[in-house]
Amino acid sequence: MKIAIYGYGNLGKGVECAVCNAEDAILTGIFTRRDPNSIKTLSGAPVYSADDLQKFKNDIDVLIICGGSATDLPVMTPALAKDFCVVDSFDTHANIPTHFENTDKAAKEGKKIAVISAGWDPGMFSINRLYASAILPNGNDYTFWGRGVSQGHSDAIRRIDGVVDARQYTVPVEGAMQSVRAGENPTLTTRQKHTRECFVVAQEGADLAKIERRIKEMPNYFADYDTVVHFISLEQLQREHSALPHGGSVIYTGTTGLNREHKHCIEYSLKLDSNPEFTASVLLACARAADRMHKRGEVGCKTLFDIAPADLSPLSPGELRKRML
Amino acid sequence: MKIAIYGYGNLGKGVECAVCNAEDAILTGIFTRRDPNSIKTLSGAPVYSADDLQKFKNDIDVLIICGGSATDLPVMTPALAKDFCVVDSFDTHANIPTHFENTDKAAKEGKKIAVISAGWDPGMFSINRLYASAILPNGNDYTFWGRGVSQGHSDAIRRIDGVVDARQYTVPVEGAMQSVRAGENPTLTTRQKHTRECFVVAQEGADLAKIERRIKEMPNYFADYDTVVHFISLEQLQREHSALPHGGSVIYTGTTGLNREHKHCIEYSLKLDSNPEFTASVLLACARAADRMHKRGEVGCKTLFDIAPADLSPLSPGELRKRML
Repeated sequence: MKIAIYGYGNLGKGVECAVCNAEDAILTGIFTRRDPNSIKTLSGAPVYSADDLQKFKNDIDVLIICGGSATDLPVMTPALAKDFCVVDSFDTHANIPTHFENTDKAAKEGKKIAVISAGWDPGMFSINRLYASAILPNGNDYTFWGRGVSQGHSDAIRRIDGVVDARQYTVPVEGAMQSVRAGENPTLTTRQKHTRECFVVAQEGADLAKIERRIKEMPNYFADYDTVVHFISLEQLQREHSALPHGGSVIYTGTTGLNREHKHCIEYSLKLDSNPEFTASVLLACARAADRMHKRGEVGCKTLFDIAPADLSPLSPGELRKRML
Repeated sequence: MKIAIYGYGNLGKGVECAVCNAEDAILTGIFTRRDPNSIKTLSGAPVYSADDLQKFKNDIDVLIICGGSATDLPVMTPALAKDFCVVDSFDTHANIPTHFENTDKAAKEGKKIAVISAGWDPGMFSINRLYASAILPNGNDYTFWGRGVSQGHSDAIRRIDGVVDARQYTVPVEGAMQSVRAGENPTLTTRQKHTRECFVVAQEGADLAKIERRIKEMPNYFADYDTVVHFISLEQLQREHSALPHGGSVIYTGTTGLNREHKHCIEYSLKLDSNPEFTASVLLACARAADRMHKRGEVGCKTLFDIAPADLSPLSPGELRKRML
């Protein structure tokens, strides 16, 4: 399948790597709204202006849109779904129904397949919540994130006066996870589920106590959490905190038996060295499914909930049954 | 949906409980090859002779076949798939391709849906192997079972002269799991992955040393494992080992990055108080999917690989996107 990438940040680079490592995909090119000449790609793949995209209609089976969820994807995905099979990683959970409707309308108009909200959360974590609740209807799911870098929280710290750079790690509370695994069905506040650890580089002479207070009191981002702030040098930040690891767990506990006397615990967990590269790998698997659904004549917006697992794999159904069932 | 159960052992009882706990399923009845009057059901559901099954064609949306994989299912599932949408838990991995072909032919002939090899392995473990390998093509999967009761191994011990009863637990080797999680991609022998722990009730005056030797040297079942044998009283066996817990983990490690420099670990694990009741709950979710596929006009044999996750859930696609994505 011929893949194109729309947008070339961390996620776009991750897709580029995933295509290079896949045996059934080739990269038509990377499309950008920036000056194409200003971009040097990791693999040497060609870069084109986003304005030229329509010229490549016959050279693209699936377009993977690597934009941000706040302002890019709500506009880009429905617009592009009229002319291309597309995949995105839209992750603003509350707005997924609206994004789905808009994209579904466009994809049906263009007789294309659009897969939205692919990645790990939303994505792999979501299907694990679904599978578990479909099997054990009398249960509860809990999602813990981390230990990993939250880019949104890191950015929020960087916007504070006197801050040069920052990295924020989301850390799940081990005791809360143990209680969930034990089937205790705890009611957990935001503070009881995760803590936040910040590594901050301050300007020389900055008021560190004030920066720390501003972080800890920041509404939505930090005020509801127990937050730890470490001031470190720029050199240490670059040496020890330049990677983008992440991960987490979906833990589901439910019961069976005539009197619901038997407990069961289902846990799906990820430990990722690179959050954008793993997300990109999920997007590429979804692109494979989109291409197959399109070739079967299916149309409209899909999520991982609507994709049969076999459609994600490069192996044939017969091989899958033989090797993996 | 109207569910019927064919066969009433531990698995059939589990399906009965699952139907009682599901809001969208009712139980038409239990069909048995034994004398129906000899069976008292857990929920008071009616019991009929298997010979009368055809009379209930209009009262059954999906028939869940709860027979054994050795001799029952290879015959029953293709035979019944001509007249009913069926679900089974066929688990002889090596024979799945043949069972699939036979069942597919029958289901297509009768324009029905048949879901085979549902449960947790094959089943939920299989789809986790598939998802992980579709996302990270350069990886390895490892499956560990336990700690849990293996009914096949318990039966094998019971057949030894001088043994009154027995329970065998399969136990994963923690060090092997740690090595896999660390991404070391170890090559593990059978012995290095699992140990076997046996609780045995011997006849009074039996030669315990001889029984222990016969267990430990039994080919296929125990000879390739480190096996521990405990002799206990019948009373202790009944008090401490009457449940059928099981579980295990599928651990997959793979890499991303232009030079495959980033490691990722995906782990799916189950801790089950009741192996047959959990398996039965997967079968019921598959029955829901079979009923929907049938009503959409689809035909043939399917496995969990071919079922879109949304089809397993009682919730509507819109509700699923809103609540779980």
